[in-house]
Amino acid sequence: MEIGLSVLAENKVGVLHKLTGVIAKLGGNILYTQQFITSENYGFIYMEVEDIDIEQLKKELDKCNYIKEYEIHNTLKKIFGKRIIIIGGGAQVAEVAKGAISEADRHNIRGERISVDTLPIVGEENIAEAVEAVLKLPRVGILVLAGSLMGGKITEAVRKVKSKGIPIISLKMFGSVPKEADLVVGDPIQAGVLAAMAIAKTAKFDINKVRGKVL
Amino acid sequence: MEIGLSVLAENKVGVLHKLTGVIAKLGGNILYTQQFITSENYGFIYMEVEDIDIEQLKKELDKCNYIKEYEIHNTLKKIFGKRIIIIGGGAQVAEVAKGAISEADRHNIRGERISVDTLPIVGEENIAEAVEAVLKLPRVGILVLAGSLMGGKITEAVRKVKSKGIPIISLKMFGSVPKEADLVVGDPIQAGVLAAMAIAKTAKFDINKVRGKVL
Repeated sequence: MEIGLSVLAENKVGVLHKLTGVIAKLGGNILYTQQFITSENYGFIYMEVEDIDIEQLKKELDKCNYIKEYEIHNTLKKIFGKRIIIIGGGAQVAEVAKGAISEADRHNIRGERISVDTLPIVGEENIAEAVEAVLKLPRVGILVLAGSLMGGKITEAVRKVKSKGIPIISLKMFGSVPKEADLVVGDPIQAGVLAAMAIAKTAKFDINKVRGKVL
Repeated sequence: MEIGLSVLAENKVGVLHKLTGVIAKLGGNILYTQQFITSENYGFIYMEVEDIDIEQLKKELDKCNYIKEYEIHNTLKKIFGKRIIIIGGGAQVAEVAKGAISEADRHNIRGERISVDTLPIVGEENIAEAVEAVLKLPRVGILVLAGSLMGGKITEAVRKVKSKGIPIISLKMFGSVPKEADLVVGDPIQAGVLAAMAIAKTAKFDINKVRGKVL
């Protein structure tokens, strides 16, 4: 069984080390961690842990004086689900998002959990850096490149993301990015809809069956 | 100075504990952590660390046999920036996103980094859970509730998020959520635009000066 654990702890060197020590001692496997500073004095730690005894965990956490409060609950994975990431120019990102959000809505009503996350941004360096950083984000299901001209370093970043198994949809555009994409789509709304269909278990669309196609 | 550190490590109990131990030993303060399992055998760990000597860190990491590869780079905060979170019904979420993405684009061109992240979802329980979980997400700048009827548990969750200092914009709608919002806006495009303006340093809009207003 998987649990979600939220902890508000002191913002001090070594706190995450101590907390992960408690979990390792109880034999828990940490599947996901997120930690960030919330104020000068406190940091927030969220974890998804499997194979841990909840009562034992509570007993141990109650003993930790560096913990201000904690909560055991549903995992974020169940709440925010898989993510569609859309990167590119504002006008086109907005249209792809519209298609993706509308289609995600239809699947989420049937029990899916698909989030649609976007970054409107300009410039080869910036876009390449953002594309590559997608590999550092959790729960990414698919990446859509929405622009009119993308190549060079962006294409290199696209190759890197693709090699890690994340499918990529590109709008029809100038530059070398469309050549690397799994699927190229002209209509931004449709690109968004297909992105949601590609990662929804409730849809029948399989991107592997149309790989390399241009719509 | 703040660094970004990405590590591909073995998927074993205790790995995060060991890695945080290395960083604590060198006196580094971990500002942000994200860790997730990438395959059966490997986990990916991303950290933002301040006050650490990069050369010493490299020397220590080279000695860790549980690390497959690592990289030191720019932080995700600099790449994806502050987040606008939009939660609600698909049709309205898409319109708010359109406004937010267009406006974020204009600020991002001037050096800002604003991401627009959405979750189209239905049902009081589901929305309330998602709203409350916003507190567990990193880099959240503002939350927009986009729907036609929201109250009950959603309002309780909104109060909780607001109490932690995250500003909230609500569309004009039925239910008690608008009463709790910092700002209520009728036009979804404008709600999105204002959300981006509220968190952009490059904009002059201060949500504190219009708190409680209805547009």
